[in-house]
Formats: sequence, C-alpha cells, structure tokens
Amino acid sequence: MSLNIIESAKTAAVQAGIKSKGLDLGMIYFPTETVCSAVFTRNKIKAAPVIYDKELMAKNRDIRAVVVNSGNANACNSNGFEAIEAIVSETARRLSIEKEQVFVASTGVIGEDLPYQKIVSSLDELIKNLGANSRSFAEAIMTTDTFTKECAIKCSPAGNTFCIGAAAKGAGMIHPNMATMLAFIVTDIRINSTMLDQALKHAVDHSFNRISVDGDTSTNDTVFLATTQEAANEEISDESELYRAFEDNLTHMCTRLAKMIVMDGEGATKLAEVIVVGAEEPEDAENIARTVANSLLVKTALFGSDPNWGRIVDAVGYANAYVNPNKLKVYIGNHPVFADGKKVSADYSALKNYMKGKEIKILIDIGVGTSTFNMWFSDISYDYVKINAEYHT
Amino acid sequence: MSLNIIESAKTAAVQAGIKSKGLDLGMIYFPTETVCSAVFTRNKIKAAPVIYDKELMAKNRDIRAVVVNSGNANACNSNGFEAIEAIVSETARRLSIEKEQVFVASTGVIGEDLPYQKIVSSLDELIKNLGANSRSFAEAIMTTDTFTKECAIKCSPAGNTFCIGAAAKGAGMIHPNMATMLAFIVTDIRINSTMLDQALKHAVDHSFNRISVDGDTSTNDTVFLATTQEAANEEISDESELYRAFEDNLTHMCTRLAKMIVMDGEGATKLAEVIVVGAEEPEDAENIARTVANSLLVKTALFGSDPNWGRIVDAVGYANAYVNPNKLKVYIGNHPVFADGKKVSADYSALKNYMKGKEIKILIDIGVGTSTFNMWFSDISYDYVKINAEYHT
Repeated sequence: MSLNIIESAKTAAVQAGIKSKGLDLGMIYFPTETVCSAVFTRNKIKAAPVIYDKELMAKNRDIRAVVVNSGNANACNSNGFEAIEAIVSETARRLSIEKEQVFVASTGVIGEDLPYQKIVSSLDELIKNLGANSRSFAEAIMTTDTFTKECAIKCSPAGNTFCIGAAAKGAGMIHPNMATMLAFIVTDIRINSTMLDQALKHAVDHSFNRISVDGDTSTNDTVFLATTQEAANEEISDESELYRAFEDNLTHMCTRLAKMIVMDGEGATKLAEVIVVGAEEPEDAENIARTVANSLLVKTALFGSDPNWGRIVDAVGYANAYVNPNKLKVYIGNHPVFADGKKVSADYSALKNYMKGKEIKILIDIGVGTSTFNMWFSDISYDYVKINAEYHT
Repeated sequence: MSLNIIESAKTAAVQAGIKSKGLDLGMIYFPTETVCSAVFTRNKIKAAPVIYDKELMAKNRDIRAVVVNSGNANACNSNGFEAIEAIVSETARRLSIEKEQVFVASTGVIGEDLPYQKIVSSLDELIKNLGANSRSFAEAIMTTDTFTKECAIKCSPAGNTFCIGAAAKGAGMIHPNMATMLAFIVTDIRINSTMLDQALKHAVDHSFNRISVDGDTSTNDTVFLATTQEAANEEISDESELYRAFEDNLTHMCTRLAKMIVMDGEGATKLAEVIVVGAEEPEDAENIARTVANSLLVKTALFGSDPNWGRIVDAVGYANAYVNPNKLKVYIGNHPVFADGKKVSADYSALKNYMKGKEIKILIDIGVGTSTFNMWFSDISYDYVKINAEYHT
C-alpha cells in the first residue's frame, strides 16, 4: 500500500520494452480534480520532461495523469519534445482529458532517443490496468534500484483525517549514468496551491535535498505531489495548525523515502547521518554537513567501520565555513572523539563496536553559533567502484 | 639530482624511528644567507608546524635549516608546540644559527603526540650526514608514496643562468589520514622577497592547487621555497623578463611535481586533465573544472576506461556556474562527444581506444565567455577503496 492509500488515485504499470526486461512504464490517474505541485533538479542540464513539466506546472495545477518510463532518461537526445508531444496527446485523447493535464517523467540512459512509439502503443493496456497497483507502479520506475521504495500514512490531528502515499526511486547510476531521483506523492488533504507548494518545498529541502550517495545531481530529478482534495478538512490557506501537521507528516514521509534511497545507493552497506550544530550561519552548517557527507575519505572509513575522527575533522576544516578549531567538538554515536583542538581519549573498543552497526550518527558541534543542518549519506564500497567502472557507455 | 642542483643546499636523512621502518627525518641546510617564501594549507584545522611556520615567516625570511619528519603529522595532539620548541632549539644550537632560522614540517598520523626526543637524539647524525643526498631526503618525507618525487632544471634565459631543484611528497591517505602534500624547492636566483612570494603564489596556484586525488585538503600542506641568491643576475625587484622566465620555470617544476603526486594517488591508474574554456567568469571556469575533477562518477568511469560523456555533462550542469546547455561542447581527447544540447555521434571505437591510455584529456567549452581553468585528477579504483577502508584508526 502506498499511492493507493488514496482510493481515487488509480495506478498501473506495464512492460513497454524500453528496458530489456521488467516493468518500465507506469501511470497514475486521477478521475477528479486535483491540485498539484512539483520540484525539479537544479542541474543546468535538464532532461526534456523536466523542461516540459516546469512550463506545464506554471499553466495548470489540475493534473489528471502522470506517465513515467524507466530505461531511458529522454535527456540530451534529438527527439525529447517530439516524444513528449506524442505521449501527452495520446494519453489525453484516451483518457478524455486535456493535454495540459498530463505530467511526464523519465529515468534511464541519457543521450539516446526515446522510443516513444513503444510507450504510445502500450497506453491502451496501461489504462486498462488502472486500479490499486501501487507496488507495480513503484517497480516500473526502478532502474538499478534493488528494492521498491514506498510508504503511506493516515493521520488524524485534531480530528482532521488525511492520508499521504508515496513511491520513489533513486540509487541507480549504471544505466541512467547518474543517480536520478523520482518521487510521486498523493494526498487527499484540502489545501490551496500556494500552501501545497510551500509544504512540498519544505519537505524536499529537509529530505531529498539532504542526501548524498556520491554527490552528483541528475538531469531528471523530480518530486511530484498531488492532492485529490477529498478529505473533510476546511481548505488550508495559511500556516494553520493543520498545515503544520501536514507539512510535518509530508516531511517525515519524504525523509523515509530519502533514507531508503541512500540505503539503496550502489554498493552501500551503511546509512550515516551527520548532524551539524552550533554553526555561525545556516550556510556554514550546510557547507560543513555537505563537505563531511561527500568526503570520500569519510565514506571509505565508514565502509571499513573505522571511527576515523581525523578525516571528519579534516573535512570540517576545509569546508567553506567559519570554524574555530578550539571550539569544535565531534561525537561518533555518543562517544566524544575530538575537543579542545585535539583527540579525546575515547573508549575505542566501544567505539569500534558502534561503527560495526548499519546506522551511524556523527554529531559535529562547531561551538560558535546556533545554526544547524543534517545530511544522510552512504559509504563507498568496492561494489560502488565495480558497478560504476564496469558500466560501459 | 634534485635539491642538490644548488651546491650550497646541503641535505641529509636518517631513520629516527618515528615510522616503523625506513628513513623518516630529513634536513636541508643552507650555510649562507637565504631569502625564503612558503605557502600553507587553507584548511582551518592546521597542524602545529603550519601555525608555527606561518608566524616564523612573518618575522624572518633568512631560513638556514629545514627539519622534516614523516610518520607523525604533529596535528591535533597535546605536545605540538613543545615538540617544535625542542626541535628548533636543539637544531639551532647544533648549527650555531638562530632559532628563528629553523623551519619545520611534519606528515603522518594525526592526533598522536610527536615523539620528539627521537628527533632530537637523531640531530647529530643528521647534521653529520649533510651533503649531496637529495634522494634520501626525498625518501625521508614519504608516507604512503610509492615513489620519490624530484626534479631539477638549469636554464639560461638571455644569458642569466639559474637553477631550481625540488622534492615533494603527496598521495598518502592511509597513515596521515589524509593526503598531505609537502614540497621543498631551492633556487639560486637573486630576487627580493616580494617577488619571490609572487612567483611562488603563482606557481602553486597553477599546479598544487589544481590537483584532485579525492578532493580532500590536509592539515599539513606546505610548499617551501628558498633561494641562496648565488646566481649572477641583477636582483629581481619587479616583473622583468627574467622574473617571467623564473616564474614560468618554477610553475613548470611545480606542475611536474603535482602531476607526479596525482599519478601516485592511492590506487590511481590514470592521470586526467580537464580543461575548461569559454566560461563567463574565472570562478565559473574553476568551479566547473573542480566539480568534474572531483566527481566520483567521472573518476570511476575513467578507471573503467569508459568515454562516459553523460557523467561529464551532468557534473558541468550541477557546478556552481553559468552554463547554457545549447552552447556547451565537450571533447574527450580530440573527439567531440557533446554539442547543441545533445550527444555527438562520435567514432566510439577510436574513443574507447583513446580511453585505454594512461593520460586522458577532457576539454569543456562552455561557449559563453573567455575564462579558463584546468585541473589534473586521478581515477578511483578498487585499490583506493581497499587502502582507505582497511586502514584502521
């Protein structure tokens, strides 16, 4: 159960033959009016669907169909927009909706033309299959992911019941050339488009934008959120208590999916969280967290279960941020490892045991202010190098 | 022949027992007056010798002795300055020079107290050995380096003969916890300290500051330059033709050493150069070059000899710089691989052959301005992960 926690969100998946095997084409269909929001990659090289959808969302928020293919990113190729035009026209015609009510997304190899005839000729079967199939939808959007990423919640803060369901994919850097992240989220809460945008932006900034598998950002990253507006609450139009509850739950859902994406990072064996506190400015906290999370030396130490505080302190030191070495404190788990400008004589046998776990926390107290930031990241294993070196263009 | 191309620069090395085996203590001694310059790590966490030397250079440029140990970084420990005080006092006393004429450097494990008594008790033997031993000096500063890094040149632009000799170390991220880079350069050209500083800054900015093994910067990085002022030229005090010749040759020497450091990067199998041209602003060119050179996906593709233009284009896209995808052109070797917003149908069999080589060039034309930057970087191999994961704190 994920997207289909919202009964009126119908999903389907088929094998269109874009990937060499398995489901590779998915659809979400909303029979009634929606309000939608989306955020996209910040990469300046954008796939055709990203460019198309950004313009689309500026014109229309009542999306009725989402068509997603895996196996081809529809990026840096010759027929990107021709392919999208064919897909949205044929989808709209079959569902008797407007072309402007069709949202598209792609993930897979970049630089290859999209064989869109395979998609168009699969639409009838896809539409026939529409029902409560969120799991197959979650499967159809996978590339090198090793497991589907889904979650759903129902909550009733102060008597206002609403649901959120989501499916995502990430991880895969072999066929898509990079770690494309796609997430599709549906809810039934009544909310206007301004507040929906605000909630999605907050949720993404605190989840998907705080993960690092290998530091690279893809051409196709997209997070899509739709509400069917079927819940009984009074429409949210400001930062009410209900809005807070929705934003919190949406952020929590996105965080769960983001952590699943990190855990499914190519060759990843551990999930680490770095929490920076006490930085002078918010950007300082973020720069330090990102520098530590992206440090190859920290990532390989993590793979080796090595409580290597020196590599963490070094990364803090070269981050673009104000740091006073004498005020800096570093903890691995609950163990202090660095303070007063030098190594702390920690209980190294307890620390080594802690490092053998699957989930590792690193707390960094800069000691000069009140700004904080956190990031989730994976280790870098032999398999990461193997997978990425052995893939051939 | 490296440092000893300057006859009056005497060098020596001994085994002081800081490392478990091999030479680990080196000295350069200048019997007569020098003018010196140095640049240091930008890491905010600085080793004790870096803090000490920075203050020293602000007071005195006539350095007569350089004492370098490997095996211990003298960083983030309890006895850093006590150790330096003992080393410089005992060295000065034995050589009958001032304490302020002794420059120190360390590379190795961080967080451990420096066993400086071993250094002090090795000084007599070290001084006794002073002579034309640059190779053993170059050996003594190695940590996980697999070969010594030395070079020397003699040149006579417009009849003014001068020499430059240099020894460096880098690469090792196992014992020192990070890739400490040390370089010691001697020359005999007559030049004032202002112009010497300018030449060294230019040379380092165009060489050591443009390499990436794994993107991390160490607590100990130091480049030291001394001139014995013995050449026959009129003292350089402005940007004369001779100054240009000196700066060019110094930059060339530093570039050779920097490339050796990249090639000796842990587990490195290839040396790549990324050249960015046509960027709008100098910072754009630098940001793009650094993003490509530090991209794990680009580095693993390089290891796999894969002409993966998609990963390069993706890295360009997420660099902090102005990029117009339709004006971007990417070449691997002489092969165009990306133009007009899409893949170029290149001769892939020739391209794959090219990628099998040891030295790879990537040219990126942003097409929107005139700014350029270049970086040298290595690939990331299984061995990199192995070496860095299996080292235990």
